Amino acid sequence: MVDRYATFANSAAGKALVKRLGLPAPTTLRRHSPGDPLVTGPVLVDAAPGGRLAPVVRKLLGEAGVPLRDPVAAAVEAGASERPGRLAALIFDATGATASDQLRTLYDFFHAQARTLLPSGRVIVLGTAPENCAAPREAIAQRALEGLVRSIGKEFGRGSTAQLVYAAPDAPLESTLRFLLSGRSAYVSGQVIRIGSPVSAAPATTRPPAAAPSATGPATETEPAAGAESPVDWEKPLAGKVALVTGAAQGIGAAIARVLARDGARVIALDVPAAGEPLAALANEIRGEALQLDVTATDAPERLAGYLRDRHGRVDVVVHNAGITRDKTLGRMTAEQWDSVLDVNLTSQERINDAILELLPAGGRLIQVSSMNGIAGNRGQANYATSKAGVIGLVQVLAPTLAARGVTVNAVAPGFIETPMTARMPVPLREASRRLNSLSQGGLPIDVAETIAWFAAPGSSGVTGNVVRVCGQSLIGA
Amino acid sequence: MVDRYATFANSAAGKALVKRLGLPAPTTLRRHSPGDPLVTGPVLVDAAPGGRLAPVVRKLLGEAGVPLRDPVAAAVEAGASERPGRLAALIFDATGATASDQLRTLYDFFHAQARTLLPSGRVIVLGTAPENCAAPREAIAQRALEGLVRSIGKEFGRGSTAQLVYAAPDAPLESTLRFLLSGRSAYVSGQVIRIGSPVSAAPATTRPPAAAPSATGPATETEPAAGAESPVDWEKPLAGKVALVTGAAQGIGAAIARVLARDGARVIALDVPAAGEPLAALANEIRGEALQLDVTATDAPERLAGYLRDRHGRVDVVVHNAGITRDKTLGRMTAEQWDSVLDVNLTSQERINDAILELLPAGGRLIQVSSMNGIAGNRGQANYATSKAGVIGLVQVLAPTLAARGVTVNAVAPGFIETPMTARMPVPLREASRRLNSLSQGGLPIDVAETIAWFAAPGSSGVTGNVVRVCGQSLIGA
Repeated sequence: MVDRYATFANSAAGKALVKRLGLPAPTTLRRHSPGDPLVTGPVLVDAAPGGRLAPVVRKLLGEAGVPLRDPVAAAVEAGASERPGRLAALIFDATGATASDQLRTLYDFFHAQARTLLPSGRVIVLGTAPENCAAPREAIAQRALEGLVRSIGKEFGRGSTAQLVYAAPDAPLESTLRFLLSGRSAYVSGQVIRIGSPVSAAPATTRPPAAAPSATGPATETEPAAGAESPVDWEKPLAGKVALVTGAAQGIGAAIARVLARDGARVIALDVPAAGEPLAALANEIRGEALQLDVTATDAPERLAGYLRDRHGRVDVVVHNAGITRDKTLGRMTAEQWDSVLDVNLTSQERINDAILELLPAGGRLIQVSSMNGIAGNRGQANYATSKAGVIGLVQVLAPTLAARGVTVNAVAPGFIETPMTARMPVPLREASRRLNSLSQGGLPIDVAETIAWFAAPGSSGVTGNVVRVCGQSLIGA
Repeated sequence: MVDRYATFANSAAGKALVKRLGLPAPTTLRRHSPGDPLVTGPVLVDAAPGGRLAPVVRKLLGEAGVPLRDPVAAAVEAGASERPGRLAALIFDATGATASDQLRTLYDFFHAQARTLLPSGRVIVLGTAPENCAAPREAIAQRALEGLVRSIGKEFGRGSTAQLVYAAPDAPLESTLRFLLSGRSAYVSGQVIRIGSPVSAAPATTRPPAAAPSATGPATETEPAAGAESPVDWEKPLAGKVALVTGAAQGIGAAIARVLARDGARVIALDVPAAGEPLAALANEIRGEALQLDVTATDAPERLAGYLRDRHGRVDVVVHNAGITRDKTLGRMTAEQWDSVLDVNLTSQERINDAILELLPAGGRLIQVSSMNGIAGNRGQANYATSKAGVIGLVQVLAPTLAARGVTVNAVAPGFIETPMTARMPVPLREASRRLNSLSQGGLPIDVAETIAWFAAPGSSGVTGNVVRVCGQSLIGA
């Protein structure tokens, strides 16, 4: 699915017309193709004094072959009168900012570097989750970063994105940094991501409390386990894994199945019998398995668990993508419209989880699809918004339980994505929805799929309990 | 400050023109005047089977003289073909919904009652905070309520509002129900409010854990302490209290000072010496005290603490309202613009809190002013958004500490409020900002002030750690 407006607006004739009419001219976003380098230019990593993450990040990126800019030289160059050099990403380690007056170091950095990013540039601010800060002043300063990062996301433009990553002392960073720097996160912006200690099923291992103040100072803190679960091949992180994707026959579900297969997984593509034909074609294309099943059927959990147990003895990645809409305002909505949306989008997933979570081994991944409208509510979608808000609850309530078994659970919350469904929206509403975000365009199904692939990756063992919007930093919120 | 568009659109000629042009026709919101009844019509209270709060709410409203509709008669009437009777509020106790398939009871209720509300009607859904639910299924169902309530806020129209109130078993409800039902909450919609056990400084009292599953079933749970700290006179809940309001000379600050004085408090109106004249006039008007002080001065905390100690020996309510904007994109922002906004809006408040929190007795109230833009970020307001995001951090980090001393801390986050500041915005931006919310209009300073007065009230002893937007359920979110 292509955004025809974006294609037009970026043609030679389109550019002239769009400029003359004052229409938004969205940047064509950099997206990932297999074999692409992580970034398209040098990366600048700087830190507030005392930051604990910058050295780790520099080492990690250096080993990944990413060209690093020298902070001192970059500051001098940015201060010069001429147009400064072009950078692919700005990474700032703000963990050293332990009081609000120390946030000035972030102003200094981003003020100087505000115009240095290449198109589809990346801003990543690293911090300590406020709930893990030892001192109130530090928690306040770290919480303040949200306002800064979301403002940067709205300011920098030209397809650039900005994220805040709160990382525990021993958080595995590489998987998330790779996702955020690459074209895989093209449509993810303005997000706050928490990376904790790697989840682990080993009962003998004591996980250090993330907030524990170190008696001997930050210098002796546990070194982040950056490469702890790094795969050999970052292009095939899911090699050897079995992944289940529901609602896989078309749209976002098909994109998820393709991306997980691209990343090396054996994909079981599940959809209703009525979608048997496109489902079989997809399974064939990705050399996966097609499984026809109505997830709302009474025996679906049992049949699905049986299939997974008999064929594979386990399932490593479960993506609950199946979802429907039956839009009506509450006064006009039928009970059947309420029931069917709640059952497909939420209740059936709870039943299935009860049956198959035991088949997820340590290292397993449960991934749910929520929605921007599950966060903000929506006129005419009370059923859908309720179901998708419940999905967020599911992530939050299961995260601690599953972490103890070495399994993560996260959700994506897509905003406006170009699909056959959104193509049928009334034109004014569709165009407004497309434009009301920091990237001035809709996202593509692959953007949702790439975010899910990041959750699924073995290196994302510290990423659990997150709800990440894939919405181009849509204006629409809570 | 009056919204001229709203006044025009509600005039006879304006109504016709607005309708013909397809412009939004905002409802004139019901706002509270002293002596007004709580509601303008009957209230319907219903519950999912097993709900623990409906009986308490019915008793409480009955004692407050609120006319209650019989649920069975209301359901029959709503089902009749004619236009059903007009209700001032719909209150639904959803605490009995312990699994997502039980949310159907909410559909049944709101489907039937979707068109029964009077203008400026109220929807209040009561639930159990997901983090306090014993079972995962229950937590998921309760979390799903957010999507429903926010959708209702966007659907019901005609000045009606919708809120979700998560209440602990012994949560004092009356203060919050009165606020939400009355015209005091005119511009508050789509909010999720948590009411816990009353905060208490008494070391001998054991506070029951909110999530503790009762071995003998819900029937024997602690009865909510609905009237525990009810004042004798709900029109003067702050009688005998000393309240400090910073930035009080004009705009929202002056409205806060007036409302707290109206509610019976002795108000210390603080502002910079340059605002001495309007400050004195205001203090005179509300029979309060004018205190000229620059909150960012090095000796401000000490001087302020000294003033409060010497004159009153304490301060019961502290409202940090002082705030400034210095809007520029980061690349054009000066260091002085960053520093001054951070210092006035956040760091100076931290310093002052350190000096005066010890003067807050049990029953004390710390109230901060955040901003919608502190939640969502804003282009050209990186400094402001950072400071106001920090304010949210301040509330979250101080809430547990202060609760142990019997003090609450909360924040309001205003959206578009009609003030001299917003009157100076460029017209297209101002009009868009005014309309992009469920009430299709800007709020008034008094709407912010009323929300603060609700936090300040003695009956709000279970309300802490909340950030409540006063934004008409603005579209603009995270």
